[in-house]
Amino acid sequence: MPQLTIAEATDLAVRGLTRAGMSAANARITADHLVDAALCGHEFSSLPRVIALAEAMRGKPAAKPTRVIRENHCSALIDGGDNVAYVVSILAVDKAVEIARKNGVAVVCANNTWFSGRLAYYVERAAREGFVAMHTTNTTARVAPHGSADRLLGTNPFAIAFPSEDDPLIIDIGTSQTTWGDVVLARTKGVPLPEGMAVSPSGHPTSDPQLALEGAILPWGGARGAGLALAVQLLGILAGSELVIDDISNYGLFFVLIDPKLFMPSDQFPARVTALRQIVAGSRPLAGHDSVRVPGDRSQRLRRENLAKGVINLDETVHARLAELATGTNNQ
Amino acid sequence: MPQLTIAEATDLAVRGLTRAGMSAANARITADHLVDAALCGHEFSSLPRVIALAEAMRGKPAAKPTRVIRENHCSALIDGGDNVAYVVSILAVDKAVEIARKNGVAVVCANNTWFSGRLAYYVERAAREGFVAMHTTNTTARVAPHGSADRLLGTNPFAIAFPSEDDPLIIDIGTSQTTWGDVVLARTKGVPLPEGMAVSPSGHPTSDPQLALEGAILPWGGARGAGLALAVQLLGILAGSELVIDDISNYGLFFVLIDPKLFMPSDQFPARVTALRQIVAGSRPLAGHDSVRVPGDRSQRLRRENLAKGVINLDETVHARLAELATGTNNQ
Repeated sequence: MPQLTIAEATDLAVRGLTRAGMSAANARITADHLVDAALCGHEFSSLPRVIALAEAMRGKPAAKPTRVIRENHCSALIDGGDNVAYVVSILAVDKAVEIARKNGVAVVCANNTWFSGRLAYYVERAAREGFVAMHTTNTTARVAPHGSADRLLGTNPFAIAFPSEDDPLIIDIGTSQTTWGDVVLARTKGVPLPEGMAVSPSGHPTSDPQLALEGAILPWGGARGAGLALAVQLLGILAGSELVIDDISNYGLFFVLIDPKLFMPSDQFPARVTALRQIVAGSRPLAGHDSVRVPGDRSQRLRRENLAKGVINLDETVHARLAELATGTNNQ
Repeated sequence: MPQLTIAEATDLAVRGLTRAGMSAANARITADHLVDAALCGHEFSSLPRVIALAEAMRGKPAAKPTRVIRENHCSALIDGGDNVAYVVSILAVDKAVEIARKNGVAVVCANNTWFSGRLAYYVERAAREGFVAMHTTNTTARVAPHGSADRLLGTNPFAIAFPSEDDPLIIDIGTSQTTWGDVVLARTKGVPLPEGMAVSPSGHPTSDPQLALEGAILPWGGARGAGLALAVQLLGILAGSELVIDDISNYGLFFVLIDPKLFMPSDQFPARVTALRQIVAGSRPLAGHDSVRVPGDRSQRLRRENLAKGVINLDETVHARLAELATGTNNQ
């Protein structure tokens, strides 16, 4: 398996994305996100996304500059100019940090954007500045509401990060039983889906990936998880997305940032987050389990280890395709 | 089964709560909540709670007045004075409405309070004023974190409401597999718990309610649901709760209110919520199902029907016990 240094991996992604039509600055923001995903062990969300991004950009007119179209002292609304959400989310969270630093609270929404990556990446950025950060985005309709056979909702992730005395404590969850990418992968591999992931176009349970792609992915967590998926959809609509997103465009990004110093003396909240994390990690595991894992800890440990090694492993096929994209050979 | 008019039911609850030591004003606020729960078909969360509240108050010193202890133009922190959260949540959400009406956004936290009722009740109140309202509260530690056998988290509900052109669209979910009350009820009835609800003190799965009460309730929704439970715990800590709440006190209430007019012209958001609700309710049901139900719609339909009838049905045993509490007979 090819090994790349972090600089090499970043450069490969930047070249692929700029050749696909992204500005150099935006390609760098996106590449940093993808390389971080690789460092954190999220292979699917990392460099292979360059291929999907290049494909999606091929059908799109050139993006426009982003604009802050409304702003008051605790909120802002950003028009993403049809730029990729890897970039617009960074602009939005940085705007939220700027507002929350001044006024303690920020609600920032963004629309006219698409493809967002790991939400953990954005909320971590804000939590490292000392803020509690909540973030949702709605996405292309692939998922049925509870009890429905029609795809109306996105995979609609929800994330929240809390500043601590070391790495932020991050919770980042999707609200669908599986992802579109996983269903496509199952079809490519010719393997069935696990039970309970999807329904066929007629609304019957299916483990056939092709029928699932024509039908709908099920929401995660029954009525409760589906409720959360619907909430994320409505927060996206608050941000200006379509009611139902039929193509890869006009996602709605929603951020809330809160300065804990509004509610307690400086440094007290990060210390309490660290204390709770230690209580949870030190609690007695269930019978048959070795230890109790706090959300996000595995990603952060892998990142520390991989940063120490300074290299990223890349699947050979993905590497070959990225090299093609980066040099413009065979770029049909 | 005894039938009471709404006025009779309210009066019965008020008398029981004042005899238990609550002020007349606070008893009325609490009774209104409990009667609304009855109207909405949530029997367990309705008048029987008077019995649990009276029992909890018996062990407590008299509550102190509530106080706003910190405030800026987008946030406030309330000391609940050890008053019941049925009351403190109303004060907190009304404070949030006041702030959000002026500045578009409000983050309000409250602590030194206990027992909260249906979170839907509070977020609906704010959504009827035109705001998107998010609310969490952490509660007495009964639930184990993901992979843990120790009870460290509360049943930690999460609710969000969206204003629409008719009743607000409300999502209100607990983050535990079952409630403490349901486990106690199973023990009283001598019936086993369903699979996967709880673990024994040694961390083994159990369906024995007594072992579950000595052990821990499991979080709902695997790692994802447990992540949400942990997030609610941390938001409670942000509001000033204990890290782990060992008794019935010092819950942390957290509210975020957002005026949709920050992001789009007046009335546009409620119209879009109504439009999405109609799309979901009108979508094709799964094979074998009759219709697709939008979260909260059943409660709101029952409330309309029961308000039209003007009466509440009450279990005979509960009615007898409430009558005792209200008149002070046999009140040991």
